[in-house]
Amino acid sequence: MTEHLTTNPCADLNAYLEGKVPNIHNFGIRVSELGRGSVTATAPLAGNGNHLNTMYAGTTFALAEMLGGAIVWPLIDFGQYYPTVKDLQIRYRRPAFTDLTGRASLNEKTITRMLTEATTLGKTEFEVEAHIVDDAGTTVATSHGTYQIRRFEAAQA
Amino acid sequence: MTEHLTTNPCADLNAYLEGKVPNIHNFGIRVSELGRGSVTATAPLAGNGNHLNTMYAGTTFALAEMLGGAIVWPLIDFGQYYPTVKDLQIRYRRPAFTDLTGRASLNEKTITRMLTEATTLGKTEFEVEAHIVDDAGTTVATSHGTYQIRRFEAAQA
Repeated sequence: MTEHLTTNPCADLNAYLEGKVPNIHNFGIRVSELGRGSVTATAPLAGNGNHLNTMYAGTTFALAEMLGGAIVWPLIDFGQYYPTVKDLQIRYRRPAFTDLTGRASLNEKTITRMLTEATTLGKTEFEVEAHIVDDAGTTVATSHGTYQIRRFEAAQA
Repeated sequence: MTEHLTTNPCADLNAYLEGKVPNIHNFGIRVSELGRGSVTATAPLAGNGNHLNTMYAGTTFALAEMLGGAIVWPLIDFGQYYPTVKDLQIRYRRPAFTDLTGRASLNEKTITRMLTEATTLGKTEFEVEAHIVDDAGTTVATSHGTYQIRRFEAAQA
């Protein structure tokens, strides 16, 4: 299911987000690394401040949440399948005074299960732990999200 | 601690958010009702779409999260104290195809404890359940957040 991948999947995914989920793009969130089972994205402090001159909690959430969708970009064709979030818990561990970097990963065993279920059942569920650090590498937030991949109904017909 | 309240606290809080947390304002989120222990706010679908033409999960989060800060506006002077979120769990129960309304409340016993602790200790912790509905009144998301109120350090000197 990787026929859709080009040589620059980060640029493709960032362009997709700009068009499809402009709020993520408008927060300045960009995917910077994308592989099979790994994703890194960043969010700038500029434009994302709050009443304490730190990173707005909603931007940190947006960074954490999008990792769970971005990580499946190399695995599925977004024209046939789509990711969606079912629930997410985020813990704000320290105030964020700098740009942020978020990372998440999926192991090969999970990926194999997901792709098998998506192909045979038309949907699959998976969990993503996101780790958000500041520019000193200090963890400012962690999250645990439950996501689904589902096949578009039109594609099932 | 309510000397800061005018006859139009919703307008005051919306103006505060526009200046201090512009991302909330830019999502179109507005407080529409504010009382002692109750808050209602809304988020428009327009400008907040996603890859499924439903409400972007981050906007629903932003609406849910801000209720925990907004609900203390009538209780404390934001020049002396500030609210902050420690953690938040959100469950997306149904796709959101319309504008959303979010509500949260605090009971009087909790408010009394919070104000006593804020005054005597300089900080207090509280929990907020937010309930997000679409324009038919169907619940599309629920959240549980843990927040703090803290006194600005400068105000303690």
